[in-house]
Amino acid sequence: MLEDYIKWYEYSLEALNYEVINARLFNGIKKIVVLGMGGSGIVGDMLASIASTSNYPVYVYKDFYVPRNVIDDSTFVLSISYSGNTLETILSTKKALQYTNAIAIIASGGELLEIAKSNNLPYIIVRGGLAPRAALPIMLIPAFKLLSLCGIELISNQELLKAVDILRNIDEAEKIGAEILGFIKSSKLPIVVSSLRYAALAIRIKNEFNENSKIPVKVEILPELFHNDIVGWEAAEFKDKAIFIDSDIEHENELINFYADYLRDIGIDIYLLKLKGSIIERFIFGSLIAGIASVKLAQIRGIDPLKTKSITMYKKMLQNIKSLFTL
Amino acid sequence: MLEDYIKWYEYSLEALNYEVINARLFNGIKKIVVLGMGGSGIVGDMLASIASTSNYPVYVYKDFYVPRNVIDDSTFVLSISYSGNTLETILSTKKALQYTNAIAIIASGGELLEIAKSNNLPYIIVRGGLAPRAALPIMLIPAFKLLSLCGIELISNQELLKAVDILRNIDEAEKIGAEILGFIKSSKLPIVVSSLRYAALAIRIKNEFNENSKIPVKVEILPELFHNDIVGWEAAEFKDKAIFIDSDIEHENELINFYADYLRDIGIDIYLLKLKGSIIERFIFGSLIAGIASVKLAQIRGIDPLKTKSITMYKKMLQNIKSLFTL
Repeated sequence: MLEDYIKWYEYSLEALNYEVINARLFNGIKKIVVLGMGGSGIVGDMLASIASTSNYPVYVYKDFYVPRNVIDDSTFVLSISYSGNTLETILSTKKALQYTNAIAIIASGGELLEIAKSNNLPYIIVRGGLAPRAALPIMLIPAFKLLSLCGIELISNQELLKAVDILRNIDEAEKIGAEILGFIKSSKLPIVVSSLRYAALAIRIKNEFNENSKIPVKVEILPELFHNDIVGWEAAEFKDKAIFIDSDIEHENELINFYADYLRDIGIDIYLLKLKGSIIERFIFGSLIAGIASVKLAQIRGIDPLKTKSITMYKKMLQNIKSLFTL
Repeated sequence: MLEDYIKWYEYSLEALNYEVINARLFNGIKKIVVLGMGGSGIVGDMLASIASTSNYPVYVYKDFYVPRNVIDDSTFVLSISYSGNTLETILSTKKALQYTNAIAIIASGGELLEIAKSNNLPYIIVRGGLAPRAALPIMLIPAFKLLSLCGIELISNQELLKAVDILRNIDEAEKIGAEILGFIKSSKLPIVVSSLRYAALAIRIKNEFNENSKIPVKVEILPELFHNDIVGWEAAEFKDKAIFIDSDIEHENELINFYADYLRDIGIDIYLLKLKGSIIERFIFGSLIAGIASVKLAQIRGIDPLKTKSITMYKKMLQNIKSLFTL
């Protein structure tokens, strides 16, 4: 798997040139709804943060349905599933199709692509054969192009090209990845903390350690954590390690530093992940670092980072209860 | 504190009759944005789930700002802060006021009420003197009346009256609370699991054990957890206890049972919290149970459930960096 993370720059250049099939302008769009799960749904979370200063709010739904009330004439739906066969995304996309035709799809194959073709929806076919989590940039990067060709400009092409460039810094990613590995390798249940603006990266880091390294992780987001979670540590008997993600916003870094000091004082080890550049650069470079560190942690633990047998069990079980899902 | 939870029924009857000051119809509203943190913000999370079958999507923001792009002419903003002095909510409300006048406020006092009065906004003054978390029903219940008088019908008054009735079952709440207490008392970092539909209750249970009992808790939501978190337990060295919340939807209970079996098999103790009735009944009765159990756990641990000294530290620190927040 490591090679796939290392190739993110190369894959991303390729992804910048993916063809957007059935692209056309959609008028009157005011918001974006992203449907997707896991390594595909996280693309929606990242889009939501990146788009927070654009004209378009992005709302992400990770379930077998999407509520009727979130889709109206001014909604553009983006369904993302790396395999194209994620049942949640297929069902919620079919549901959305009952309400609107303003739907686009990103997948490497599967039933979702069939839905795109038979409904003449805009879609992108991404490179197949990767673990979904290793396909993050090739789903995120072309999403901007797809949206742009449908009339929805989230960031400029120039910003996007500049962002992709950060993936060339493999040496730096490996260096920081090794630091995190050294920090986290004895941890039984690490915490990842970020501001709400960087929640998508905190969740991504968690998910990488879950899937690649097979360790449980807890994510907490500030400022909300200051209203409840912080109190949980006042008399905690379990203390482990925490990775903090810094921000490009000054007051958020003040809050990060305050909380890092607080947890350090009560006996929790702290690692501060310092990133640089735009929010999209931080998302993809931070994800690259987490990918490398989590695969190497799997190797140290003697675990295959690629295999996720519990997800296979889940998908098998889903087939048995498929009749319970009605459209 | 226990007495306040026990009085929820009484407080709720009172809350049904709170006056909505400056109430007036707002036309053309298509969505609701809730601003609030902690024990007040959770009201927004509950409203969002309860409203999922209504005509109005509800989006909740828990930060010092609200993105410009989420507020337009068809947005109704509801700001909730029990004290009325939560800096995040004050700043995000002031931000929202730059974009719209369709804002209403729920508070027991503080600067938010002053903002409501000076801007002629609809508002409700709720009973003061409680811990914010013990004020859950007196913020949630009148929210429906406030919204209704502003022209936004989420649930019928009949449904609301019926829901409040469940808070009379103190004996049952204490019985289930005692079961959870017995289950969780030796736990160092319990997990709370629910479907996305009941995420607000899972988070509420977590927050109650954080604030009242001073123990850290991890929340995981399905089906998303089946795409990452489940794998983290495959080779976990830390195993503790998990509380599962059942659902009123059949396929969600199938998923709950599958995951409960999975975690039990790998050595995690499971408690299944079975609730009944409508989603709002489940939210408030589940919250009552968690309130009772978490206060009693504090007593067993020799801890004052009311005091949250780390939140006081946070609020003091905020005063020092106040100049960094610009409107």
